Amino acid sequence: MVKKVNYPNGIKKTFKINTANRGMSLENDLNDTNNYYRNHDIAIIYKKPTPITINKVDYKARNDAVIKEAHFIVPSTTDYNGVYNGKYIDFEAKETRKNYFPLSNIHNHQIEHLRKIKKCGGIGFIIVKFSLSNEVYLLEIDKLDKFLDNSKRKSIPKEYFVNEGYLIKQGYNPYLDYLKIIDIIRSDENE
Amino acid sequence: MVKKVNYPNGIKKTFKINTANRGMSLENDLNDTNNYYRNHDIAIIYKKPTPITINKVDYKARNDAVIKEAHFIVPSTTDYNGVYNGKYIDFEAKETRKNYFPLSNIHNHQIEHLRKIKKCGGIGFIIVKFSLSNEVYLLEIDKLDKFLDNSKRKSIPKEYFVNEGYLIKQGYNPYLDYLKIIDIIRSDENE
Repeated sequence: MVKKVNYPNGIKKTFKINTANRGMSLENDLNDTNNYYRNHDIAIIYKKPTPITINKVDYKARNDAVIKEAHFIVPSTTDYNGVYNGKYIDFEAKETRKNYFPLSNIHNHQIEHLRKIKKCGGIGFIIVKFSLSNEVYLLEIDKLDKFLDNSKRKSIPKEYFVNEGYLIKQGYNPYLDYLKIIDIIRSDENE
Repeated sequence: MVKKVNYPNGIKKTFKINTANRGMSLENDLNDTNNYYRNHDIAIIYKKPTPITINKVDYKARNDAVIKEAHFIVPSTTDYNGVYNGKYIDFEAKETRKNYFPLSNIHNHQIEHLRKIKKCGGIGFIIVKFSLSNEVYLLEIDKLDKFLDNSKRKSIPKEYFVNEGYLIKQGYNPYLDYLKIIDIIRSDENE
């Protein structure tokens, strides 16, 4: 990712953005990756704003409204969506410090949302980072459902991600190239 | 659209939702329409939450955090996106009480966003409601760009929407069936 800075004398410089925070949080790494995709016209994928209900707004001045009371609400969808090669992409991203993924980390209606995305021809998945081993996996909604259909466990062991999901390799630019996995999935579908 | 109510004695009833507010605001009508699409597995399209930055949160109790100070931020994208027949859909919706559409109603970076959507194979457009005549038009990003390329005007006359856009017919269910226009556009593209 590249940042442009305009100097007062009209000289334009281009900087590489600091990569020191990479690997610190999955959200940062995905934002970094999505910025790269956007800046290179590869894909337009954003994290959605946090859903809230606003109760009280103080209109101090024109264009300067301050929200004085608001509440977080349970999201009805996933955090990330966008477009890649015309296809609709939709996913939820979670981190865990266990060597399994607790299903309490994802809401039932988010899983239901991903199923509906699949039904409407979109590509739905979850991205899970196992922080201790610094491994990031992509698991399609179908594979998540396969687990839920066949198990009463309240968590998915990491082995399931290893066997049924895809390890996202960590590179330089972009840092977490998860769309490479989408290419693999789509080429498998077309075979 | 249908609402399910669970009664204490286990009886489930299904109600049609009140349509009295229809035509009152474009946002309501689009939410109503998107609910219909979702409930019938036609498309999954949502309005995004309002983007804000949160400065102060009061953690009164577990699961009861109250946002005490937050600010609205300029959205970097459009308000609505989702999936229809596998295709990525993205649009901004605006109302005007004039017989023209003031370009100040839409941010430059939202127009830029729609261009990028198109570049990545998605379907980008604006929906504009002319409140006084109660007409709602869909205008593709290409046609919006064509206007901007050829005019220095700060507003788009309604005639441009009539000639270059599509009138969205108002029906019963769904109320504003804008995906019908997408079908027309896509079948034209494939001819």
